Amino acid sequence: MDELIRRQRAFAAARDWEQFHTPKNLAMALAGEAGELLAEFQWLTPEESVTVMDDPDAGHRVRSEAADVFLYLTRLADVLGIDLVQAANDKLDEGERRYDAATYRGSARKAPPLS
Amino acid sequence: MDELIRRQRAFAAARDWEQFHTPKNLAMALAGEAGELLAEFQWLTPEESVTVMDDPDAGHRVRSEAADVFLYLTRLADVLGIDLVQAANDKLDEGERRYDAATYRGSARKAPPLS
Amino acid sequence: MDELIRRQRAFAAARDWEQFHTPKNLAMALAGEAGELLAEFQWLTPEESVTVMDDPDAGHRVRSEAADVFLYLTRLADVLGIDLVQAANDKLDEGERRYDAATYRGSARKAPPLS
Amino acid sequence: MDELIRRQRAFAAARDWEQFHTPKNLAMALAGEAGELLAEFQWLTPEESVTVMDDPDAGHRVRSEAADVFLYLTRLADVLGIDLVQAANDKLDEGERRYDAATYRGSARKAPPLS
Repeated sequence: MDELIRRQRAFAAARDWEQFHTPKNLAMALAGEAGELLAEFQWLTPEESVTVMDDPDAGHRVRSEAADVFLYLTRLADVLGIDLVQAANDKLDEGERRYDAATYRGSARKAPPLS
Repeated sequence: MDELIRRQRAFAAARDWEQFHTPKNLAMALAGEAGELLAEFQWLTPEESVTVMDDPDAGHRVRSEAADVFLYLTRLADVLGIDLVQAANDKLDEGERRYDAATYRGSARKAPPLS
Repeated sequence: MDELIRRQRAFAAARDWEQFHTPKNLAMALAGEAGELLAEFQWLTPEESVTVMDDPDAGHRVRSEAADVFLYLTRLADVLGIDLVQAANDKLDEGERRYDAATYRGSARKAPPLS
Repeated sequence: MDELIRRQRAFAAARDWEQFHTPKNLAMALAGEAGELLAEFQWLTPEESVTVMDDPDAGHRVRSEAADVFLYLTRLADVLGIDLVQAANDKLDEGERRYDAATYRGSARKAPPLS
């Protein structure tokens, strides 16, 4: 992941695109790509969504859209100085405290979003 | 990142939440969190967005929302069998071919989304 | 709908919020609210989503989020000079030409997004 | 708007697409289209976004994406039995109580999302 972040920095610098990579713009690009990823699943049943990678065309698009989300997320985090892995572990710590396994077992209804 | 993915698997298994973690639902959760991250920037000027982490409250929220996006993205990729780092490098390869540095220098207008 | 648009103009003017209501910012606010609406459905099965309004709490939140999306959409359209009803009818004209009823009957797979 | 809703009902019925139009799926389609609309603005400065309709190509895309958001929003509201205009007026009533014009004048920072 560090190597990927360095590669993105070089990619943006070589094209003088750093001027466009404000956190505001990157958050927009990230949400836009998340919307494209979402669109791949919108007419699938939950069951069909489980096997989406078995279809070569749909599978390729899903992989490509997930990659775009990842690229904008890591770029945004880099620009903001956020360590994503550390931040994610902090959220899991919080999740483990908040949703004890016994109480929330098998129930998503009881589990509001973490943030 | 591998360790984080293993931790998420254990977290979901301990709560019997795997039943909710269909790709369709995870793509929804991912897009929802991307929307919350986006909302942190919606009334900021591009310039204000650059220094968002200097404000302790806003900075904490942004870090937390970015972590949520990362958690759902890595969980979705895990469920689908996608290697995010490899997929992102493939997209950067494609981007380097498509947007040669000389032609696209300083212009975001000319650069349509990668996908 | 015209009355609602006029009311929003007065609401923004009275608070000197027009400065924040650039199309860029309003598109962000709209997507953020669409993400909140989406989040109401993320852990529901398709069948559960059909009866979401039967639950007073969830029903109230869904109605409120749908209203927020509508408010930002109509405000954005007003700022941009777009007649939403006319634009939507134009898209339906296009959809009727593109997806003839016989060919696309019962198949969402065959129907790519209109845009 | 009532006429538009009736037209959408007929459009879906003629193609036997009602089966796909669960609230869950429609909320996904709505968020996906909101993401596409957002993407039109992601690399524009706030100032450039104000004149986006002056460019025939970008203007056409923005109008088309706004229409798509509107179509899925009105269809979702129809399926759920929500009167969007009434719900939006209720939110404006709430907004007028919560954000009195004197206190919030000229400040978006002080104004958290309505919901």
